[in-house]
Amino acid sequence: MAKKNLIVGQSGGPTAVINSSLYGVVSEGLNHHEEIETVYGMVNGIEGFLEDRILDFRQALPGEKLEYLKTTPGAYLGSCRYKLPESLEDPVYPRLFEKFEKLNIGWFFYIGGNDSMDTVSKLSRYAARIKSPIRVIGEPKTIDNDLVNTDHTPGYGSAAKYVASTVREIVLDASVYEKKSVTIVEIMGRHAGWLTAAGALARKYEGDNPRYIYLPESNFDTESFLKDIESALEKDCCVVVCVSEGIHDASGTFICEYDSAVGTDTFGHKMLAGCGKYLENLVRSRLGVKARSVELNVSQRCSASLMSAADQREAVSAGKFGVQAALKGETGKMVSFIRHTEPDSSCRIECGLEDVNVICNEEKTIPSEWIIRNGSDVSEEFIKYALPLIQGQVEVPLGKDGLPAFVYRK
Amino acid sequence: MAKKNLIVGQSGGPTAVINSSLYGVVSEGLNHHEEIETVYGMVNGIEGFLEDRILDFRQALPGEKLEYLKTTPGAYLGSCRYKLPESLEDPVYPRLFEKFEKLNIGWFFYIGGNDSMDTVSKLSRYAARIKSPIRVIGEPKTIDNDLVNTDHTPGYGSAAKYVASTVREIVLDASVYEKKSVTIVEIMGRHAGWLTAAGALARKYEGDNPRYIYLPESNFDTESFLKDIESALEKDCCVVVCVSEGIHDASGTFICEYDSAVGTDTFGHKMLAGCGKYLENLVRSRLGVKARSVELNVSQRCSASLMSAADQREAVSAGKFGVQAALKGETGKMVSFIRHTEPDSSCRIECGLEDVNVICNEEKTIPSEWIIRNGSDVSEEFIKYALPLIQGQVEVPLGKDGLPAFVYRK
Repeated sequence: MAKKNLIVGQSGGPTAVINSSLYGVVSEGLNHHEEIETVYGMVNGIEGFLEDRILDFRQALPGEKLEYLKTTPGAYLGSCRYKLPESLEDPVYPRLFEKFEKLNIGWFFYIGGNDSMDTVSKLSRYAARIKSPIRVIGEPKTIDNDLVNTDHTPGYGSAAKYVASTVREIVLDASVYEKKSVTIVEIMGRHAGWLTAAGALARKYEGDNPRYIYLPESNFDTESFLKDIESALEKDCCVVVCVSEGIHDASGTFICEYDSAVGTDTFGHKMLAGCGKYLENLVRSRLGVKARSVELNVSQRCSASLMSAADQREAVSAGKFGVQAALKGETGKMVSFIRHTEPDSSCRIECGLEDVNVICNEEKTIPSEWIIRNGSDVSEEFIKYALPLIQGQVEVPLGKDGLPAFVYRK
Repeated sequence: MAKKNLIVGQSGGPTAVINSSLYGVVSEGLNHHEEIETVYGMVNGIEGFLEDRILDFRQALPGEKLEYLKTTPGAYLGSCRYKLPESLEDPVYPRLFEKFEKLNIGWFFYIGGNDSMDTVSKLSRYAARIKSPIRVIGEPKTIDNDLVNTDHTPGYGSAAKYVASTVREIVLDASVYEKKSVTIVEIMGRHAGWLTAAGALARKYEGDNPRYIYLPESNFDTESFLKDIESALEKDCCVVVCVSEGIHDASGTFICEYDSAVGTDTFGHKMLAGCGKYLENLVRSRLGVKARSVELNVSQRCSASLMSAADQREAVSAGKFGVQAALKGETGKMVSFIRHTEPDSSCRIECGLEDVNVICNEEKTIPSEWIIRNGSDVSEEFIKYALPLIQGQVEVPLGKDGLPAFVYRK
């Protein structure tokens, strides 16, 4: 059988380990000399590929340089937000497949979240329709952890570890003064509260800060929130809470929108601040205490120093597993994680395959039974679920300047 | 000679290594059995001490537990912002010295920045006036690096390492899309730009992001800023810049004030957002490109995972050196750092002593000759100065939950 090439792309927002998944795909691809000629990368995903922007990994990251991918956050190949047309009659599909054929592609991998799985779904369906032998596999990636039919997604563990460690540090920082104070930590995740819930991992003992965790899965009521804070301030002088950027009230209005409705910049444009800033002002105005808000921002998805070793290892295995599956003829699938709980209650993660068509149309949120205390906390079940995912430290290689030595496209 | 006790307090904002300085003082103090009976800690600085809130380190952190101080950010003893009265006639002075005598204090150490050195100055002057034998020594601490008569201050190296590493990660994160975008990173330091300048360490090659660095030492002109950004966008599609929270225009008005003048919350209160948010909106409105701002916030001063080993080591030595000096009879001094450049151009830091009365009244900003490109960058001299201070990684001990195991007061 004549050899073919493998091509891989990255899409959507980056994570700390999206390049570990890439490493898994590329290293496993290059290992299969007998079937795979070379491994190409799409620069800026499908969008860049349509402009013929590709690279050959044998030239781009030869030898040991490939290893650096595992400790480089961001998307090495560049990313895109490009939605393929719903209709498979659209001329973009034959254009893409002509390009695939010209490059003698046998396998296409796309690393990303929901939208990227939509691309995998469409391309695998189009391949079936035109009876193309090209195999299309999705590699999961999202800090939001919102993909269905998988225990969790690569990227979540590292982001959760960043949130847990950083919130623990913020609690230390906030506790130094005797003065009553409230600190609001705003965490990513517009529709799913998985990442915000990771704030609960920061607690060192029962009743420790962060005292409350507010998720987008529940309706947020500002009056109950203020009562929660007041009651916590009666016991402790320093109160830290975690809120998801996507908290909303019963009418479905995002809490941050209440803010943007009134602030305007000097040009008369609405100023969008986050819900953390809004709640900070609310607490200061209504309760008359010192208030501060901290938006954890992009470091949640790009911190190398707080990468979870478990997450990194799983991302690499998912990449490798996908290549092995594609070589066996699988297509239209996403690599998933299945959790096995061992007799000693430790957990083991196994890779599986799931129908990508189901995954791209659904969103996994935190089960309602894990949300407790009237929507202001998460249960012990969540802690048990999340703890194994943040374990282990990764040693990031340092450059001559003593700072992390990342790889990047020249 | 009868044994006496040593007491130490922490004051002002915490840093990643303020507890390393504390470790230095306490461990060295406990080592001198022949002269020092025990080492006490003031809880919440002078303010807590006035309420008799103290602890004995032999009970609070016995044996190996003391070691954890070196990897615990925040102020273990708690902090305060308490300014002693200017007049030494004030009754607070005899009150304090009565308390010192009751506890049989021979040596008092205060770890902090400018304001804490003011406390050291006043107490040492009062001791001289009443001919008290109590020795008063200041241990420097500030992420702002703005104390005079010392090469740098403990706390700065770790904060600078956090800024450099995080900005490097933010650049990776910002570079994944092909779309033109501007990212503004807002960094702490209202009057001195040392920490913002550390953003320049993030560059991997000449001309790399962050493209510009705006410090509070220069006047900030929004029109020149927009021209800088436009010119950078001509060459690159992703532009990242670092701005100090304290940038101001030629009239002395902080840039962030232009923002707060117009935004109000639902209660009619002025909304204070940072200059990063203001400039983000400005760039979006005026240049019509995607813009984002990231406020690095408190993690700059409390990140354990990005602690600089050099900073930690120096903070410990400064603590130990101070105790040795006090035992030799020194008082009214702050421990300083003197830099020696070796023939191989590596640098060695030696501890010294400086008159605390001079230090508490001055502020060290970046030398004007190190500020280049019309106030939009720092020179190679700054890089040479700062690079040794951020070197080395610190291994933070982990708890059973896999997260950093910090020590805290029960």
